[in-house]
Amino acid sequence: MKRERKGDIWDFEHEIPATGGGGGEKLILGLDGGTSNTICVCMPVIPFTSNHSPPVYARAVAGCSNHNSVGESAARETLEQVMAEALLKSGCSRSAVRAVCLAVSGVNHPTDQQRILDWLSDIFASDVEFFVENDAVAALASGTMGKLHGCVLIAGTGTIAYGYTEDGREARASGAGPVLGDWGSGYGIAAKALTSVIRSYDGRGPETMLTCSVLHQLQLSSPDELIGWTYADPSWARIANLVPVVVSCAEAGDQVANDILLHAVQELASSVKAVVHRLGLCGKDGKASFPLVMVGNVLEANRRWDIGKEVEPAVGAALLAWNYVIEQYQQEHPVVDYD
Amino acid sequence: MKRERKGDIWDFEHEIPATGGGGGEKLILGLDGGTSNTICVCMPVIPFTSNHSPPVYARAVAGCSNHNSVGESAARETLEQVMAEALLKSGCSRSAVRAVCLAVSGVNHPTDQQRILDWLSDIFASDVEFFVENDAVAALASGTMGKLHGCVLIAGTGTIAYGYTEDGREARASGAGPVLGDWGSGYGIAAKALTSVIRSYDGRGPETMLTCSVLHQLQLSSPDELIGWTYADPSWARIANLVPVVVSCAEAGDQVANDILLHAVQELASSVKAVVHRLGLCGKDGKASFPLVMVGNVLEANRRWDIGKEVEPAVGAALLAWNYVIEQYQQEHPVVDYD
Repeated sequence: MKRERKGDIWDFEHEIPATGGGGGEKLILGLDGGTSNTICVCMPVIPFTSNHSPPVYARAVAGCSNHNSVGESAARETLEQVMAEALLKSGCSRSAVRAVCLAVSGVNHPTDQQRILDWLSDIFASDVEFFVENDAVAALASGTMGKLHGCVLIAGTGTIAYGYTEDGREARASGAGPVLGDWGSGYGIAAKALTSVIRSYDGRGPETMLTCSVLHQLQLSSPDELIGWTYADPSWARIANLVPVVVSCAEAGDQVANDILLHAVQELASSVKAVVHRLGLCGKDGKASFPLVMVGNVLEANRRWDIGKEVEPAVGAALLAWNYVIEQYQQEHPVVDYD
Repeated sequence: MKRERKGDIWDFEHEIPATGGGGGEKLILGLDGGTSNTICVCMPVIPFTSNHSPPVYARAVAGCSNHNSVGESAARETLEQVMAEALLKSGCSRSAVRAVCLAVSGVNHPTDQQRILDWLSDIFASDVEFFVENDAVAALASGTMGKLHGCVLIAGTGTIAYGYTEDGREARASGAGPVLGDWGSGYGIAAKALTSVIRSYDGRGPETMLTCSVLHQLQLSSPDELIGWTYADPSWARIANLVPVVVSCAEAGDQVANDILLHAVQELASSVKAVVHRLGLCGKDGKASFPLVMVGNVLEANRRWDIGKEVEPAVGAALLAWNYVIEQYQQEHPVVDYD
């Protein structure tokens, strides 16, 4: 797929109708890139009041964009495509973009950040503002309307806890992927379930309802076929898809499945506690309150919980950039009237 | 790399000197394919007495041949090359081969076995005997001079326990790879050590000497660089290479490292117990004795242990085929005199 990056031509933009898009309107792209899927929203740079939902012009969905999981070039391809699709749907072109907030899982180190910043500046004009963050940041912003304060816990295919203080300090826990022990993640839960089936079959562990349920779900006839199944495709999301089976078995009273979920909850809680403790989010007297946002399939399974999310994480990412752009505009035009 | 399989030409054989090899001599290839490396030996079909070492004409070494780890075509390529190199070194051609015992990690299911049998019969003449087994079988045979009786525990990059009764029943435990919980393996030990470093850094776990030692070994400056390091290369053996660091830290008194090793030992023991129990190797009164063979870097680290190995596993594999061929010969020539 050939595309000119700095110039006027970008393959993904070709089909934009000539009639689309507001003339001089400025846009923000908010992107939430997880290990299961990647969502991009397109928001206009216009003020809105807090009792209204943020305006979203377009939304596009793509697959995994975690470079640790699918490799760097596939991750980049996915990010470019989903942004182009959101722009296309909004009927605007790349030149309308004022700011981009890319919040992607797998961004763990300044070098990850710099690599993404480099290719963003290769695509967009030099006056576009970029924010490149771990996807946990979008998730936090989704519960705080773009403000970075509090703690967020993500538990989807992967898991991470991320926190920000009001004065800009930050801390994280977990988010290191399956090899490095993210046992509270969907992947971790499902891998433990698969392991329990193998242990039971070997004679190393108790019998469990998981054997029957997992084999049925995967249409396999014997636990030793799980080995081939597991290594046939290294995608983390494919393993994590088994989480609902574990939840069903636990709900049906299976002790092994229940212990797996209990252990996952303890792991998730310990990640949140580590972040809250390091940032002192509870204040000196231990009584200060702070937003706690919880995101991801593993946590959203129980619909009775108030998990604190107000908008979807991609919108959270867009709001983060929106807050910055609006603040900058206010500084430049101090007497502007929003009503 | 083009090669004619059934015909007389096999690319790997080209350089065999015309003068080499005994005229009508028959050979056995014994192959031990692990996740770290693959060894092939070439043995003549001649009798030898039990107080002599088995005669080995040639020995060749190659990399990983576990198809779950490197993929099927790379695994097959490695197996073919190492066999060709052993033949070349012995100065004999493929047509001298009477039997092949291929014991490879990752052979877990009849379909794995069949796939390898299919391509073996594509390379060798139709009257060659093939034995395709998990590499645990070669390891057991290495302690019993080719006889399949007793229990073997392998703990190298991966781990598996395998057992055979004298009447031919078999059982295994573990050997399901890292995702499926082989925590007694070198990979499992090293992954737990890496996880401990991350947990300590996050504030989720106690401080450990492992942080300093692992970062020093990998020439990294901060624990968050471990995430990129871990996922940059998915090879299991690369992770397992950290085992000596864990052993050193435990020997220096680090509690975290010691707990990791203790847990690994418990896991390994539980695999052996499961196999022994299922096969009833201790007999009805629980007092019967049986060979217990232990193989692999994790177990061979302590040189004071008697781990029961008499020859290397590749020779064990060759002996397994050798026993079969000699027995068959004796049946066909009942009055043959070995002296």
